[in-house]
Amino acid sequence: MLKDKEKPIILITNDDGYRAKGLKTLIEALQPYGYLVVVAPSEGQSGMAHAITVKVPLRLDKIEEKEGYEIYVCSGTPVDCVKLANNQLFSGIKPDLLVSGINHGANASASVVYSGTMAAAIEGCLYEIPSIGFSYLDFSKNADFTSCVSFVRKIVQKTLEKGLEKNTCLNVNIPRLPENEIKGIKICRQNKGVWREEFDKRLDPNNREYYWLTGEFYNLEPDANDTDEWALHHGYVSIVPVQIDLTDYQSIDKLKQWNL
Amino acid sequence: MLKDKEKPIILITNDDGYRAKGLKTLIEALQPYGYLVVVAPSEGQSGMAHAITVKVPLRLDKIEEKEGYEIYVCSGTPVDCVKLANNQLFSGIKPDLLVSGINHGANASASVVYSGTMAAAIEGCLYEIPSIGFSYLDFSKNADFTSCVSFVRKIVQKTLEKGLEKNTCLNVNIPRLPENEIKGIKICRQNKGVWREEFDKRLDPNNREYYWLTGEFYNLEPDANDTDEWALHHGYVSIVPVQIDLTDYQSIDKLKQWNL
Repeated sequence: MLKDKEKPIILITNDDGYRAKGLKTLIEALQPYGYLVVVAPSEGQSGMAHAITVKVPLRLDKIEEKEGYEIYVCSGTPVDCVKLANNQLFSGIKPDLLVSGINHGANASASVVYSGTMAAAIEGCLYEIPSIGFSYLDFSKNADFTSCVSFVRKIVQKTLEKGLEKNTCLNVNIPRLPENEIKGIKICRQNKGVWREEFDKRLDPNNREYYWLTGEFYNLEPDANDTDEWALHHGYVSIVPVQIDLTDYQSIDKLKQWNL
Repeated sequence: MLKDKEKPIILITNDDGYRAKGLKTLIEALQPYGYLVVVAPSEGQSGMAHAITVKVPLRLDKIEEKEGYEIYVCSGTPVDCVKLANNQLFSGIKPDLLVSGINHGANASASVVYSGTMAAAIEGCLYEIPSIGFSYLDFSKNADFTSCVSFVRKIVQKTLEKGLEKNTCLNVNIPRLPENEIKGIKICRQNKGVWREEFDKRLDPNNREYYWLTGEFYNLEPDANDTDEWALHHGYVSIVPVQIDLTDYQSIDKLKQWNL
């Protein structure tokens, strides 16, 4: 039974699916810190953001159980994984920590709104579980996550020790550098930036048009030195505290003057 | 050519799909205010949040063009609709306004993070287009949107006139009441609340388990009188200004003291 575990219980998920190297790195890195319950999507779910599955039912299958961890595969999105885990695997108790990732590719700046990795962490936050999303700035399937391990451990250990504010989770991005070239960790704000799309328009064998989404990131404040983009660009691990209240408080008074 | 239009250009999308009654209500309601370019998903996309389609290509087909509006159907998510429209239909110009909805069902409080309707508005905001998401508190397919029309028009007209802050869009929810029972419009903050899941666990014909996501909303601050939940519960239309910077600024200093 999970509630009998003496160690902290750590719920792990990701958006690249259960076979992803980033997830395996996380499982190896975090075994010293707790009992790991891994619930990961059966397929890659990149770009699924905070999507939940409502049109089809979900499957949840245990595929592995070893000393120190158990692994489940879920047919849905990262947020489905968090919801199913909390409802079906943790009934009556709450995990001590949720860790999502390590994502293959960056989730800094505006990318946080598209990210399944960060959506899982935000969902954990809605469940009032201290939650962290980790991303590594290498999109490739065979990315080498070696330099992430010590930073992941340090941040997880500190979060278990200190806890997080109820409505806050952490968005951690790690630059693609050898460990000894990473200069340290910076606490940052989310950089203002946007993705600008270039759709790749093609013709199918029936001569009908179709579009592939591609895009390029534009940094709208390249000179700011307190953002996640700046930190990553200068060789630091970035941590942005992320919160779940989207209200723009500064606009409330202005809108009241519209006298609607 | 769109750039020759004399009226404001209004981009319309939704997450219930191009056949939805809420979308049709919006098209009828907004024709006096601009030239309408409607780009809606081919199928319902409820709960898709800010998901983008990266694993399969997208289709975009014009299905109707009349005096005053044109309608396209897109195979992707609400956010795909906004991206494709901006990239393929508006090259060189920018719509004057983006309106998403009218959603069949509420998108107040924490629901904003799961909402495809609001994701489309947030995406518009990332494109620096003044953007509004409208939702009506009736989930049914045949909801009667009559009481929405005058409020939609009033809010759209004022937004065209006044504009919005660059990083802000509006989340408008309309209570399910006859028009003459709606008391007015309140500018609000996002209520603190959560969805708590109850998964409906069933057995398929092969005796394997599957799960349907269901849930119940919990209001974590039922006594607050400045939230969208309060306004809706008391017969008002709620407007929450929503912004795209998720940074929890108050946690930055605390995290710096962790000395990571």
